[in-house]
Amino acid sequence: MSEAIQQRQDARRRAVLDAAAELYATSGYRATSMNDLAARVGLSKPALYHYVRSKEEVLVELYEGVMRDSTDAVAQIEATSATAIDALRAVIVQRVAYTCENQALLRVFFEEEAGLPRGQLADVLQARRAYENAVMAIALRAVAEGALVMPVSARIYVNTILGAANWVYKWFDPRGRLGPRALGAEIAAAFLGPAR
Amino acid sequence: MSEAIQQRQDARRRAVLDAAAELYATSGYRATSMNDLAARVGLSKPALYHYVRSKEEVLVELYEGVMRDSTDAVAQIEATSATAIDALRAVIVQRVAYTCENQALLRVFFEEEAGLPRGQLADVLQARRAYENAVMAIALRAVAEGALVMPVSARIYVNTILGAANWVYKWFDPRGRLGPRALGAEIAAAFLGPAR
Repeated sequence: MSEAIQQRQDARRRAVLDAAAELYATSGYRATSMNDLAARVGLSKPALYHYVRSKEEVLVELYEGVMRDSTDAVAQIEATSATAIDALRAVIVQRVAYTCENQALLRVFFEEEAGLPRGQLADVLQARRAYENAVMAIALRAVAEGALVMPVSARIYVNTILGAANWVYKWFDPRGRLGPRALGAEIAAAFLGPAR
Repeated sequence: MSEAIQQRQDARRRAVLDAAAELYATSGYRATSMNDLAARVGLSKPALYHYVRSKEEVLVELYEGVMRDSTDAVAQIEATSATAIDALRAVIVQRVAYTCENQALLRVFFEEEAGLPRGQLADVLQARRAYENAVMAIALRAVAEGALVMPVSARIYVNTILGAANWVYKWFDPRGRLGPRALGAEIAAAFLGPAR
């Protein structure tokens, strides 16, 4: 297959996933059919099946994408932050901004777990736990560096932070005063105080 | 109607609502039928219709119950707290404990808005905003009393707190180390420091 064709196919597949996130977020995963998806992306149903095999495959891929993005973001932040407290602040900003920028996708991610095949659900829970552990390790390093006082256990502290960050999928208003990263900086400041 | 019959009817109706919360949380509101609900509570379908007219009526009632409980709880806390910072801490503890104790109901409340008739959805959003405003007023009083430093705007601070509190519907484990109120006290401490 030529590179141009491959690129076009990748873009088309990407468009299918984006449309699925919007549809699943608006109408719910269960109520969305492959017909709905084909209509949304302007493909015939046979053409749609060329890109994805089932609405379940699409759901799994949406979940895998979010987990991959989250894991990659933390790794990149760890590699580029001078201190653990900088890294913790950057994780909160990234998490909030990503959620604001992918509000429909994150609604699906947080609300459609019941649609996942059992094995994939276990993978998602495991990946989520690994993500929490990575953030917890950063927070504990910030404590060790003397830059953070954690008034509660690390597990609860991190769940509290991530809960607050995740919750923006419910209330972020794209027409609001603050953009995704500015809102992330505010939520980080609510926990860590203003950035230096 | 005699008082005993009225009480039995109220209890039966309460059981229908509880069963609906469980079913809607597990299978999703859209996928749950009045047949499923009748089977779950051990009533014939005609008997079920004696208590509730439709699965939509049940959904609306579940939402109204949560909103009423939330508003009542804040009013009661305000009436019984010596200081605003005590009230703010009590609001967080109550919010977390209530969510842990009604995990299925809160899953429905947070994830099934799309099933509400349009008018009711507007009511829910308005009641939620009123609840946020009440908590915000408490936080601002705590600032005025010199007991709280809010590093960000009151709206974002309160949304951050409530987001963290609400998020426990996702991760509270009834078999875990901390019970509902103990977890609430920890999450309050994550924001406000340890209680005096």
